[in-house]
Amino acid sequence: MTQKGTLLSFRPDIKVVDATIRDGGLVNNFYFEDDFVRELYKTNIKAGVDYMEFGYKASKELFNVNEFGDWKFCDESSIRRIVGDNDTDLKIAVMADVGRTDYKNDIIDKKDSVIDIIRIATYINTIPAAVEMIEYCHAKGYETSINIMAISTSNTGDIEQALELLGQSNVDVFYIVDSYGSMYPEQIRTISEMYIRIAEKYGKKVGIHAHNNQQTAFANTIEATACGVSYLDATMLGMGRGAGNCALEALLGFLKNPKYNIIPALKFVQTKMLELKKQGLVWGYDIPYLLTGLLNQHPRTAIAKIAENDTDYTSFYRDIWDREN
Amino acid sequence: MTQKGTLLSFRPDIKVVDATIRDGGLVNNFYFEDDFVRELYKTNIKAGVDYMEFGYKASKELFNVNEFGDWKFCDESSIRRIVGDNDTDLKIAVMADVGRTDYKNDIIDKKDSVIDIIRIATYINTIPAAVEMIEYCHAKGYETSINIMAISTSNTGDIEQALELLGQSNVDVFYIVDSYGSMYPEQIRTISEMYIRIAEKYGKKVGIHAHNNQQTAFANTIEATACGVSYLDATMLGMGRGAGNCALEALLGFLKNPKYNIIPALKFVQTKMLELKKQGLVWGYDIPYLLTGLLNQHPRTAIAKIAENDTDYTSFYRDIWDREN
Repeated sequence: MTQKGTLLSFRPDIKVVDATIRDGGLVNNFYFEDDFVRELYKTNIKAGVDYMEFGYKASKELFNVNEFGDWKFCDESSIRRIVGDNDTDLKIAVMADVGRTDYKNDIIDKKDSVIDIIRIATYINTIPAAVEMIEYCHAKGYETSINIMAISTSNTGDIEQALELLGQSNVDVFYIVDSYGSMYPEQIRTISEMYIRIAEKYGKKVGIHAHNNQQTAFANTIEATACGVSYLDATMLGMGRGAGNCALEALLGFLKNPKYNIIPALKFVQTKMLELKKQGLVWGYDIPYLLTGLLNQHPRTAIAKIAENDTDYTSFYRDIWDREN
Repeated sequence: MTQKGTLLSFRPDIKVVDATIRDGGLVNNFYFEDDFVRELYKTNIKAGVDYMEFGYKASKELFNVNEFGDWKFCDESSIRRIVGDNDTDLKIAVMADVGRTDYKNDIIDKKDSVIDIIRIATYINTIPAAVEMIEYCHAKGYETSINIMAISTSNTGDIEQALELLGQSNVDVFYIVDSYGSMYPEQIRTISEMYIRIAEKYGKKVGIHAHNNQQTAFANTIEATACGVSYLDATMLGMGRGAGNCALEALLGFLKNPKYNIIPALKFVQTKMLELKKQGLVWGYDIPYLLTGLLNQHPRTAIAKIAENDTDYTSFYRDIWDREN
């Protein structure tokens, strides 16, 4: 591995991306209070965070607006309610799923929007549709990233081919996404090297979005960083679907870039995130997530198990093992 | 890094060490019920665990036997109450602290004991006393390991010199100990390479004992394994002082050696470990541990903070930062 930087140096190319509302929204159907989102926005500015992801640009044809909070849809007016014209250095991100976004209607010209980057989420088998979205958003004036999900179940050759295709598009950032939290640091290094090799060939950047099923989200994120990955996703108190994500407070503490400041993040955790926990929202490492991560499966069975307060781990392991075999 | 084995292969040299009673005993002053210890013993046998650490061999001159459970002292009769003559493949370990063990009285001839290995815990400045204990225990017939604690605060040159001295002793295993949970995978690889280089020169093995302050205990343990470290400490549900240890169930799931079986460990976690949590015992990752880990400090301030249910993390961070500066 060719290491980029040391544990004492800092890397000006690093961008920290707060994905609390977007990935955390999968825990509470995007029902965050405006006060919460506004405090998070202010906190990210103080903490030196580079991007704040507000949620999804989900299609209102496919999803009922009465069943979700505003951040499932991220209307321009919703974001502006929080940020005004966003006269700050913090950039604003939204995620757009291939096949679940009515992008030709819902993504307006960049000159009329406070959004800076559209993060396009795709599975490996919908890359051509993703490229179409990339080119659409790029033409509208946005920065874009491509987040290929569930790569732990994809063939390495297929991922390479996908990245070669994407390299020829106008996308700005390739994202490594460990959707199932199944990857170990050693795999992250191999994958990072592959992504970086192809990214450098086409002048793209590389990011990472890790999950904490096996308590490796933070470790995997900093390992990818050492390999040269520069867009780093994290969430407050690791909030996110199932086992959650790399904790933003841990990442800010680790990074040596003088612009980052852990204190505002700690304050937000103690005032706002603990309150969500008290309200009964559940996320974070637990044994069923360890087991779906270990078997490289979607966490949905584990989420259901934990929602039922069912701690019969041996039966659960037998059941999910049977799904594989 | 020269990697030993792959994620698909297995390593016959690996030894899994269950340290639940010993490190977990720091949470409950070693008051484990016999039934708990006996079930753990049976579980370890079924799970293919190689060593079970029963506790400390603490001096009864220094510690009041009325203030601790039996596993602080590990009398021969206490261990035999659980294991009889231990006619199994599971080896039995105890820990002996330099300066806190009355070893000339309390460590009897191996031929009269069911204990297999004495793990000698020392700080870097008491190596000569540790060597004396190693030679004493070795002469009595025991396998020994040397666990140099708090190496994250020691000078690398000093650690190398200590290992060179220890290489010339009769110790069998050098242990990497991340007492403060302050180390990252990248540091673990560098340290592992140094320990292994000196260990190989003298025909010793290397082990790792990780803490989970920054949620890197499992990741650090498997990274060390990939570098060739072979004695791997873990505890059920990660039970141990403060943020706890590498979780045994995660480690057994990860290892590919056919002898290891995660199912008995899962059963023990669901029947016995969750019960300890219900009784109010507290361990595992939390923000104050992240912060002491980040600042490379002993976790005692974090343990006190959490015991008080005090979630003012920003004040805590300021206070422990001041201790440094």
